[in-house]
Amino acid sequence: MENTCAVVLAAGKGTRMKSKKPKVLAEILFEPMLGYVLRTCQKAGINEICAVTGFEAQQVEDYLTGWKDRLCVSTVLQDQQKGTGHAVMMAKEFLEQNREKDVLILYGDTPCLSPEVIEDAYRQHKQQNNAATIVTAILENPYGYGRIVRDGDSIIKIVEQKDASPEESKIPEINSGVYWFGAEHLLNMLEQLKPNNAQGEYYLTDTIGLTIKSGKRVGGYCAENSDVVLGANSRKDLYELNEKMRMNIIYRHMENGVSFASTDGVIIAPDAKIGADTVILGGTILKEQVVIGEDCVIGPNTVIQKSEIGDRVKLNSVQCYQSKIHTDVDIGPFVHIRPNSEVKSFAHIGDFVEVKNSVIGEGTAVAHLTYVGDSDIGKNVNFGCGVVTVNYDGVNKHRCVVEDDVFIGCNTNLVAPVHIGKGAYTAAGSTITDDVSEYALAIARSRQTEIEGFAAKKLAGRKKKV
Amino acid sequence: MENTCAVVLAAGKGTRMKSKKPKVLAEILFEPMLGYVLRTCQKAGINEICAVTGFEAQQVEDYLTGWKDRLCVSTVLQDQQKGTGHAVMMAKEFLEQNREKDVLILYGDTPCLSPEVIEDAYRQHKQQNNAATIVTAILENPYGYGRIVRDGDSIIKIVEQKDASPEESKIPEINSGVYWFGAEHLLNMLEQLKPNNAQGEYYLTDTIGLTIKSGKRVGGYCAENSDVVLGANSRKDLYELNEKMRMNIIYRHMENGVSFASTDGVIIAPDAKIGADTVILGGTILKEQVVIGEDCVIGPNTVIQKSEIGDRVKLNSVQCYQSKIHTDVDIGPFVHIRPNSEVKSFAHIGDFVEVKNSVIGEGTAVAHLTYVGDSDIGKNVNFGCGVVTVNYDGVNKHRCVVEDDVFIGCNTNLVAPVHIGKGAYTAAGSTITDDVSEYALAIARSRQTEIEGFAAKKLAGRKKKV
Amino acid sequence: MENTCAVVLAAGKGTRMKSKKPKVLAEILFEPMLGYVLRTCQKAGINEICAVTGFEAQQVEDYLTGWKDRLCVSTVLQDQQKGTGHAVMMAKEFLEQNREKDVLILYGDTPCLSPEVIEDAYRQHKQQNNAATIVTAILENPYGYGRIVRDGDSIIKIVEQKDASPEESKIPEINSGVYWFGAEHLLNMLEQLKPNNAQGEYYLTDTIGLTIKSGKRVGGYCAENSDVVLGANSRKDLYELNEKMRMNIIYRHMENGVSFASTDGVIIAPDAKIGADTVILGGTILKEQVVIGEDCVIGPNTVIQKSEIGDRVKLNSVQCYQSKIHTDVDIGPFVHIRPNSEVKSFAHIGDFVEVKNSVIGEGTAVAHLTYVGDSDIGKNVNFGCGVVTVNYDGVNKHRCVVEDDVFIGCNTNLVAPVHIGKGAYTAAGSTITDDVSEYALAIARSRQTEIEGFAAKKLAGRKKKV
Repeated sequence: MENTCAVVLAAGKGTRMKSKKPKVLAEILFEPMLGYVLRTCQKAGINEICAVTGFEAQQVEDYLTGWKDRLCVSTVLQDQQKGTGHAVMMAKEFLEQNREKDVLILYGDTPCLSPEVIEDAYRQHKQQNNAATIVTAILENPYGYGRIVRDGDSIIKIVEQKDASPEESKIPEINSGVYWFGAEHLLNMLEQLKPNNAQGEYYLTDTIGLTIKSGKRVGGYCAENSDVVLGANSRKDLYELNEKMRMNIIYRHMENGVSFASTDGVIIAPDAKIGADTVILGGTILKEQVVIGEDCVIGPNTVIQKSEIGDRVKLNSVQCYQSKIHTDVDIGPFVHIRPNSEVKSFAHIGDFVEVKNSVIGEGTAVAHLTYVGDSDIGKNVNFGCGVVTVNYDGVNKHRCVVEDDVFIGCNTNLVAPVHIGKGAYTAAGSTITDDVSEYALAIARSRQTEIEGFAAKKLAGRKKKV
Repeated sequence: MENTCAVVLAAGKGTRMKSKKPKVLAEILFEPMLGYVLRTCQKAGINEICAVTGFEAQQVEDYLTGWKDRLCVSTVLQDQQKGTGHAVMMAKEFLEQNREKDVLILYGDTPCLSPEVIEDAYRQHKQQNNAATIVTAILENPYGYGRIVRDGDSIIKIVEQKDASPEESKIPEINSGVYWFGAEHLLNMLEQLKPNNAQGEYYLTDTIGLTIKSGKRVGGYCAENSDVVLGANSRKDLYELNEKMRMNIIYRHMENGVSFASTDGVIIAPDAKIGADTVILGGTILKEQVVIGEDCVIGPNTVIQKSEIGDRVKLNSVQCYQSKIHTDVDIGPFVHIRPNSEVKSFAHIGDFVEVKNSVIGEGTAVAHLTYVGDSDIGKNVNFGCGVVTVNYDGVNKHRCVVEDDVFIGCNTNLVAPVHIGKGAYTAAGSTITDDVSEYALAIARSRQTEIEGFAAKKLAGRKKKV
Repeated sequence: MENTCAVVLAAGKGTRMKSKKPKVLAEILFEPMLGYVLRTCQKAGINEICAVTGFEAQQVEDYLTGWKDRLCVSTVLQDQQKGTGHAVMMAKEFLEQNREKDVLILYGDTPCLSPEVIEDAYRQHKQQNNAATIVTAILENPYGYGRIVRDGDSIIKIVEQKDASPEESKIPEINSGVYWFGAEHLLNMLEQLKPNNAQGEYYLTDTIGLTIKSGKRVGGYCAENSDVVLGANSRKDLYELNEKMRMNIIYRHMENGVSFASTDGVIIAPDAKIGADTVILGGTILKEQVVIGEDCVIGPNTVIQKSEIGDRVKLNSVQCYQSKIHTDVDIGPFVHIRPNSEVKSFAHIGDFVEVKNSVIGEGTAVAHLTYVGDSDIGKNVNFGCGVVTVNYDGVNKHRCVVEDDVFIGCNTNLVAPVHIGKGAYTAAGSTITDDVSEYALAIARSRQTEIEGFAAKKLAGRKKKV
């Protein structure tokens, strides 16, 4: 949307949260509420944003740094908590720079506000040629909210609960607190704003009364879904919002053809993509930037973050971070894929395996109790049990290269940097420090000897103890 | 039930499922809906079944192959989707072969239909000497269903929603779509069936009108539990059916004396047996063919399939497949028991252990980070940490035999085939390639040497890096 | 509360539980219901308690043994199930010894009764100078309970459901069955008690009628929260109580500033303490005696018992028992911390690691597939992958000591007792049996040799098999 900007109020402490963090950084589905609000602005096409910070302002600024490649976000500090009107006043300079635009005023802790509502309200704002447009909602129980008193299309009053007549109390349409203003007009109204209470607070709502008094038109866009007003003042509120969004996302994936054997403990970030006929099992957590193909079985208790998973992949009790798993791969149970790994098609990774910063080639098997770190593993390689790539010499990290068709014996140490030639074997229990030629057998272990009868005494001791 | 057969309609695609699989193969508690329907027929004593396939017919046929040892199931293909009447017409040959019998018409995607309802409806069908008997149900909200118009015991009409008068709309008794017919009679009616709509579809319901018109008697058996009509047209429906059945099964086990510390993420297949005073913890999944004894603690996050678990067993974060665990065994956390394993009484298996195709003897301890594969382990054996049975030489698999009272040192490789005699010891870090005599100590490792001061420089480098 | 004592009825079998255990030992949040009742007494300041046992009395006595350091608990056996009055008669001797006191009669299977209710009821009992005070509650659906008929402050009758007039049936105030009596008075009433039914049972409720008849005053203390009456007669009841308490505890922690990404599968024992801004993930189980600091991330699927966790600790899929984790420690995924361990600040423990009866020093890293048992590890030590402390020689356990700045190579065995000097290195694949000097490199492995072309034939065999 051309010619628009937004002021996001993000100064609150959220006392009932009992947190060292500002309220807008409280998380839903692993993302701060403020992130939802910024993404909504971005999707609605509002790219110029001023956030009003207050409590623990530095934390908010640090968080916003991560958004600077996507949005033009500046901040202003409200160092005293003197009301929403006062908060918007802090953005005076921002408003002056955008005085020819329309400005959206919204809150950093109402994550359910959708881009569609913002866009539709803006469309109406322009069509009706309003000085201000209020986003409203119809609530079954409107008690406590400011009621919208209308005269046809126009709003003639907002009545706060304490001032409402019995008749007005019955009005179900309420003020969400989200507004579109002409920026110039808002600047004028803010100048006239007065603290109207004992605490000396300035209420943004009063700009609406001033607008009406000035003879300008105030419209109301009534959002179909009343969730727009949902915010969180306590951890329980936050949890309830979290549950609501969690299930909405799950239902959306069901509609796309994803099955859920259980939704218990399942958390899927809003941006996850999952192919049809994939089955999600209980306890699965898909954090940000996850793409999963079709016909996969993911879970139980699988955690994935910033990873791409191909079709027909099984991830049973796996944690997988910043990696790529190709098609037809079977991993688990109890596996840890650490960042910068790639597992190619038809590979199998079994129990108690860690892969880190490595490539596992096509058709390769790493079946049990193995660590593959900083390594490039070819195709059709077979890792025995208990293999360790010794990638750290105590000062530097080095890489192992294992060519196609290699067979690494059980409990082998591959001391990096080392190169295992195509088709080579290593004997079980060997520590391999030198490169191995292709098709050779490398062995580094001692001959077995026997001390007769040694164990008889030991056994007697053991049995006595038991 | 003698002289009965059934036609199961299994041709649907279930477009809203967005699946490459036919709808009847969509799974509830890890089993296709069609499986529930077939088991219901089987339990009701109907052994002659014809399934009408359509969308992805081959997948349905493949699935049915697994049932051929339990039921006589044939299939016919409905290659055009021309209505339920048309679907049953496809089974004409089957009906002709069974013309002296009674035939049940039911659906592959209504998994809640119980054998009792089928049997009771059949009993009534015979007692009332009906040409057709409709399974009906009373719904609180019957909107959308065909209503049953009765005259005493007889049904005189089924009125579809769109044709229902205001009076008829209030009838709470609805047509489930499940019918008992005399097969001969059904054949006659099908011959009279005409497509009665623009799409040229044949409706099975019209055979009821034809029956009444022909002066024959149509009865209605009203199922007490209206779940008989529950089907799934979307993944969300499927999920809701899954949840309903999931909790019903859990409650049934509670009634039998099983405790649940949490039911979250707990999925128990319909055929599981669990003894009294066993406690199930959260995230536990019991797939098909699981029997668990009394006084066990199963979970959290334990997955079991096709296994038998004795009394007083603890399985903490274990995945156990196709194996047998005897009484008084303690396993976990983080253990993988792979197929064809047997763990005998009083054995202990600790963390990060895989057992595969092996026997673990009575009182034996495999405490940590160990792989026991293709091995026969005796009684009172002690495995150190990090032991590996090297069962695969790169071409063939071989077995290890470890006799009673053996002590396997830490990080020992047992290179199969190898035999460790009774009461023998292996030294830590040894790779054992030859058999070990009873009560002997086998050792295969190098003498320790020291390079003085070597590490000082290394440490300096490491510290600089950090 | 001075001059008080209690009789706890704990004789019931709970037939519908289908258990070998007495009903009062059925568990909620991993603790027997009887434990809740005893703790309530203790918190209310009632230290003299007589438990009336019956079914499986020995199990109850064994359980009570664990309480004897906190409470003075005696038991009497009711060997025939002849009613609640009969049960209290069994405690005659106890009552005689406490005849100058007030006695609380309560039930071992009503775990929701709070100390506040007991104390407030006692206060009223004394203020009103009652002979008996009944704890009552207001139920929305009082059907089945004895109704309280009052005349002002006094109770004039308890009417059982079957005897209630239509008018009395509407009384919402019911008898919880919990009473305060003057002990002397109760003794007198018990003497007058007669079996009033076919089964020859003595009802405790009848002592109320006798009290009123004798002209003494009976008061009623109405508990604000009607949960006081909640008990469990079946596993389903037990499960529902469990769920109720489970969520109440979780909500209490939310109020204290703890976040829950999911509550599914989360179970927190009543005595757990958790700091603000800590996040709990799904499947986390905190058993008894757990203290967790601020800003931690606990879970998913983390189990903790009798442990103290510092600030800023991450425990991802960890099981931790009877141990202490200091601040800024990062553990997981898939780690087992066994009793008597201590992990100091800034240590890191990675995947598939077991720590047992050991100290891990500040800043030390144990990254993967390692067992540290019976060991004292210094600061800034680096463990390679696959290290094993060989703490058991088959007869005795010994300790390893690893000084600061040591680097333990991968797949090293440290055969205890052994001492690794400050800053020393061990070479990968070494079995260390002798002490290592400070800053030295210890090495115990064989030189690598190569058999040329050996693997070519093997590979051919392997490929043929595949």
